[in-house]
Amino acid sequence: MSEEMYSIKEAMLYSQRIGHLSKALWKAVEKDWQLWIKPYDLNINEHHILWISYHLKGASISDVARFGVMHVSTAFNFSKKLEERGYLKFSKRDDDKRNTYIELTESGSELIIEMNRHYLDSPHTILEGSLPLKELYGRFPEFLDVMAVIRNIYGDDFVEIFERSYKNYQEVFDVIHEKEMVVK
Amino acid sequence: MSEEMYSIKEAMLYSQRIGHLSKALWKAVEKDWQLWIKPYDLNINEHHILWISYHLKGASISDVARFGVMHVSTAFNFSKKLEERGYLKFSKRDDDKRNTYIELTESGSELIIEMNRHYLDSPHTILEGSLPLKELYGRFPEFLDVMAVIRNIYGDDFVEIFERSYKNYQEVFDVIHEKEMVVK
Repeated sequence: MSEEMYSIKEAMLYSQRIGHLSKALWKAVEKDWQLWIKPYDLNINEHHILWISYHLKGASISDVARFGVMHVSTAFNFSKKLEERGYLKFSKRDDDKRNTYIELTESGSELIIEMNRHYLDSPHTILEGSLPLKELYGRFPEFLDVMAVIRNIYGDDFVEIFERSYKNYQEVFDVIHEKEMVVK
Repeated sequence: MSEEMYSIKEAMLYSQRIGHLSKALWKAVEKDWQLWIKPYDLNINEHHILWISYHLKGASISDVARFGVMHVSTAFNFSKKLEERGYLKFSKRDDDKRNTYIELTESGSELIIEMNRHYLDSPHTILEGSLPLKELYGRFPEFLDVMAVIRNIYGDDFVEIFERSYKNYQEVFDVIHEKEMVVK
């Protein structure tokens, strides 16, 4: 085989391999996610919209779509349904008339906190499947190569928003759980 | 926070993080996959069934379902459609009357080879997004931590079958491309 042919072979094997791996990973994630949100009568995209709105504190529909990896029309239609259920509200900004922003209502924020509190009530195969790695390395895997590929595909600002939302999650986590203690 | 609370926080942040990462990765994979198979009028599960049958050389419906991460009924129904289109045939084995096996017809094998030949005609964002890693490290990333999590979730035999199918792909690749040269 020529060198070029060898590269094509390597590239095609790699590309299909990550495709099949990613399908298996996603199917496990999807199942965990669905079992978690089932009691709240939400689908994955609806929950993702609420999660993003909670952690980004007022995002535009196009931000939500981009960061939640869904079509703008999907983000808009599900946001409308969530608005009807009283979980979020739409708004316009004076400095940006073209975009529609969404923000959680009090009831929407309470739902997110409630779901957080019940996170461990449903099985999480991904978490269980990662515990041996945590035991071995002392911490959970970071999937740096997946993150690098995602950064190259979706752009630096996608990863920046991703990290920002998790930074917020980390910060509010203690507050959420303190609230829980107060509620109890 | 107590130590136990800290672990819960770490676990929940990790688990949702990999969930969101996995969604972004899968959406990119799904788009690439769909663009590749579109000219052949197949959906992802149908193509996956053909791919598995080609590389495992006669698999049972339950093997295909398990390895392709789909419901047995999904695997069965799509296999039926592929049989109607003449791409595969069903059979029973004398030593295993309970399972239904599927095998590619000549037309099914030709389709797989044809699709392989046209792999690079459609865009593959995952591949493009991985090239900077290849340049940096001299080879494509191996996603060993993802593989380890998948092994823990789906079992050793899942990974063993996965590797077997890729070993076959590697071996037949040269044959497929030699055929291509003869055909040209």
